[in-house]
Amino acid sequence: MVAMNAISRLNARFARIATISEAASMLGWDAAAVMPTGGAEARGDQLAVLAGVAHDLLTAPDLAEELAAAPAPDDPWEARNLALMRHAQVRATALPLDLVEAQERANAACERVWREARPASDFAMVAGKLEEVVRLERERAAALGERLGLSPYDALMDGFQRGIGADDVAPVFARYEAFLAEALPEVEARQRAAPAALPLTGYFPADAQEALCKRLAARAGLDFDHARLDRSLHPFCGGTPTDVRITTRYDEANPAQAIMGVLHETGHALYERGLPAAWRRQPVGHAAGMAAHESQSLILEMQACRSDAYLSFLSGELTAAFGVSGPEWSAANLARLWRHVERGFIRVDADEMTYPAHVILRFRLERAMIAGDLAVRDLPGAWAEGLHALLGITPPDDRRGCLQDIHWYDGLFGYFPSYTLGAMAAAQLMAAARAALPDLDAALGRGELAPLVGWLGTNVHALGSSVGFSDLLASATGRPFDAGAFEAHLRMRYLN
Amino acid sequence: MVAMNAISRLNARFARIATISEAASMLGWDAAAVMPTGGAEARGDQLAVLAGVAHDLLTAPDLAEELAAAPAPDDPWEARNLALMRHAQVRATALPLDLVEAQERANAACERVWREARPASDFAMVAGKLEEVVRLERERAAALGERLGLSPYDALMDGFQRGIGADDVAPVFARYEAFLAEALPEVEARQRAAPAALPLTGYFPADAQEALCKRLAARAGLDFDHARLDRSLHPFCGGTPTDVRITTRYDEANPAQAIMGVLHETGHALYERGLPAAWRRQPVGHAAGMAAHESQSLILEMQACRSDAYLSFLSGELTAAFGVSGPEWSAANLARLWRHVERGFIRVDADEMTYPAHVILRFRLERAMIAGDLAVRDLPGAWAEGLHALLGITPPDDRRGCLQDIHWYDGLFGYFPSYTLGAMAAAQLMAAARAALPDLDAALGRGELAPLVGWLGTNVHALGSSVGFSDLLASATGRPFDAGAFEAHLRMRYLN
Repeated sequence: MVAMNAISRLNARFARIATISEAASMLGWDAAAVMPTGGAEARGDQLAVLAGVAHDLLTAPDLAEELAAAPAPDDPWEARNLALMRHAQVRATALPLDLVEAQERANAACERVWREARPASDFAMVAGKLEEVVRLERERAAALGERLGLSPYDALMDGFQRGIGADDVAPVFARYEAFLAEALPEVEARQRAAPAALPLTGYFPADAQEALCKRLAARAGLDFDHARLDRSLHPFCGGTPTDVRITTRYDEANPAQAIMGVLHETGHALYERGLPAAWRRQPVGHAAGMAAHESQSLILEMQACRSDAYLSFLSGELTAAFGVSGPEWSAANLARLWRHVERGFIRVDADEMTYPAHVILRFRLERAMIAGDLAVRDLPGAWAEGLHALLGITPPDDRRGCLQDIHWYDGLFGYFPSYTLGAMAAAQLMAAARAALPDLDAALGRGELAPLVGWLGTNVHALGSSVGFSDLLASATGRPFDAGAFEAHLRMRYLN
Repeated sequence: MVAMNAISRLNARFARIATISEAASMLGWDAAAVMPTGGAEARGDQLAVLAGVAHDLLTAPDLAEELAAAPAPDDPWEARNLALMRHAQVRATALPLDLVEAQERANAACERVWREARPASDFAMVAGKLEEVVRLERERAAALGERLGLSPYDALMDGFQRGIGADDVAPVFARYEAFLAEALPEVEARQRAAPAALPLTGYFPADAQEALCKRLAARAGLDFDHARLDRSLHPFCGGTPTDVRITTRYDEANPAQAIMGVLHETGHALYERGLPAAWRRQPVGHAAGMAAHESQSLILEMQACRSDAYLSFLSGELTAAFGVSGPEWSAANLARLWRHVERGFIRVDADEMTYPAHVILRFRLERAMIAGDLAVRDLPGAWAEGLHALLGITPPDDRRGCLQDIHWYDGLFGYFPSYTLGAMAAAQLMAAARAALPDLDAALGRGELAPLVGWLGTNVHALGSSVGFSDLLASATGRPFDAGAFEAHLRMRYLN
């Protein structure tokens, strides 16, 4: 009875913190999707106060006492939940307030300058600010690492995907680099030998694109009684499990970006929708991390919806939605357009095969910066060298090099590996789903994702954070994390 | 230096509380305007947690100490702000937690039953729940009144419009009752003698109405870099002073409701926009109360925008917006339609002349209920009797009688007088503005509200809560609150 009360009390405290984060998530959606420009300053204050309140609740001294005194629960989910509570509390209390505030100031100042330096392609303009960001982030990484018993860089990775460190990732990435060196020229040769892709030309009104995207998301299983699709400059998935908000933007000259973008965000949204309702607002009821989340968006966008089967369905949807016809709308041409592999400078424009190269580059550079092995002033050179080693190309300027991503300039280190871990996990999960669901491709050919989403619901979504990333994959696929599935997928799609 | 720090610290604490209320206001807008239905339960939790956090901050024991210890500021705004802080803190700490929670439960349960009892016109169905609501509200009123040195009912009124009590309102209302008895038959006789109003028939697409409403609101001075107009079942004005959110709903068979509704909400919005920015998030920087707020919506909707001058402008706007023509679109016919006076049963459908009768009825009944002089079971009879005394009509059923408004069934007592105090204040302010601005009607004829809104900005909006309701009117018009201005307005409009 006493034990139960101690756990219940902790659950209520963490539910309260999570509910405040839900409110903040909604206000973040509002800011991106509907807020008039004049509301930005007040919104910044609102989000800062909510973050401060949540932080105060998480760092309250009596919470530390309650966590320390809590008896070990018998129920494994309750036990895991308690462990995750303690972990969150340790992370929140590991940092001195003056460091947190210094980082807020330094990151905001650096990001502001970066917004001018990037279009000007002037790394020198922002180098000093970035040095300060890196200096403080190294302090933070060291403080977190000390409390968590992790290396500084791993302590940063831990904030995005618990349980995965640089030593797990580095060999996976080295192996992918070798794969790429061998496979990429082959894929390029194949592409050169194949018919050229016909471009989609025409005017594709945003409203018609939006109606199509909404239909596709609904057919993928997103219930719009618990979700919205809106527009924002940068697509994202926000909100809460019972009220998911996804966004996209429409290019009226090209519908590909919005359609594939919405299917991507739908994957995130379905993960949130499928989290275990009984553990809502508890740490164990949340998604298993950023790599896990990315696996769910990419299994929809890259694995399922760029498959031959789904593209044949999509071909019919597109011609109906836009009243168009012609060979450029065939499934085969859509595949040539939307599965085109090309070495490029820009990460966010990259195809699924070269994308990991961009991530590997950033992982190596940021790990070196956090370790103190790479000075900020040497970043442009290291970038050019690293990209050349991976993809054989050299960026013509820093705008298309180390200035292209906001992450570091906003103080975000340790996040990049999640993208590629997610892509690899998506391939591993898809292979297992395909084995379990013999009719999967027939369903995809009808635009139906219900079998796949149902399988993911049971094997991934419903597990919340009850297991870590690797155990989640082992539980769902019967094998530990295995980067080979992604290579097999690429070989099958591009070299078969 | 010590004094300044004490005040600054208090200001920061109250700004934090106000910022949380801003977040809640935004989430309330979201729930009404855009939230998918499935998000309702989580939203309820979010709003409850934010309210709880704000309440915790306001009732923290060390805040009481800081308020008690704060030195008297020299600056009159700072002094007023401190007084309002103390007032808010006293109200927040006056009630035992078990009473607050009992009221939350009882009000929610009663409102739920009312939603069935109203369409069924079955007062008996909800009478027991309402008895419990009234019983608890009387407890609350007594507790508040004791702490504030007010009668129980005045303590409730104080929550909506500080400084105005039942003894201020009762004679004003008695005088209006006498005015109505004399003037209403005269107005009805005039109307019977005048040409009948021609109805507006046709299809008025919601999008076209919305575009027109947005144009009218912008022309009235609402800056859409700091505001949005959206749709909701019940129109309202929410958000924050730099990001005001107004809503309306569209009847595609009749554009009057949306147009006049948006102009009404625009009045509220402009008040928020015009509050003193230097005192944002401080008690003294907020609007001066609900009656003051209603005066700002009604001076736009009723005083300015139903004037002959504005209706002549609106006539041209309507014919252009909907591509219509004919005598029914003349300013004279719009006046006959939109200034039609008629005794009716429903408050929200009432014209400006009979509306106060509905308020007077509710004021007398709720005052008697809080005093213990009227039992809930006697409410239908007292309602019928009271309405007959005021308007000479008897509701055919309780649906069109004491079941029509949500207020009491949701535990809201003491609010009703604000509607009519606001209407009366609007007339008094309009008379003063007209005297100060000789070209006011010429501007209204061009749809321009800038002169009026500028005058209100200086004389009302910019004052925030630095003075109370009566002093606000005295400061703006040179005279204390004077119900006679409203009668003069009605005589001028309907009997001249």
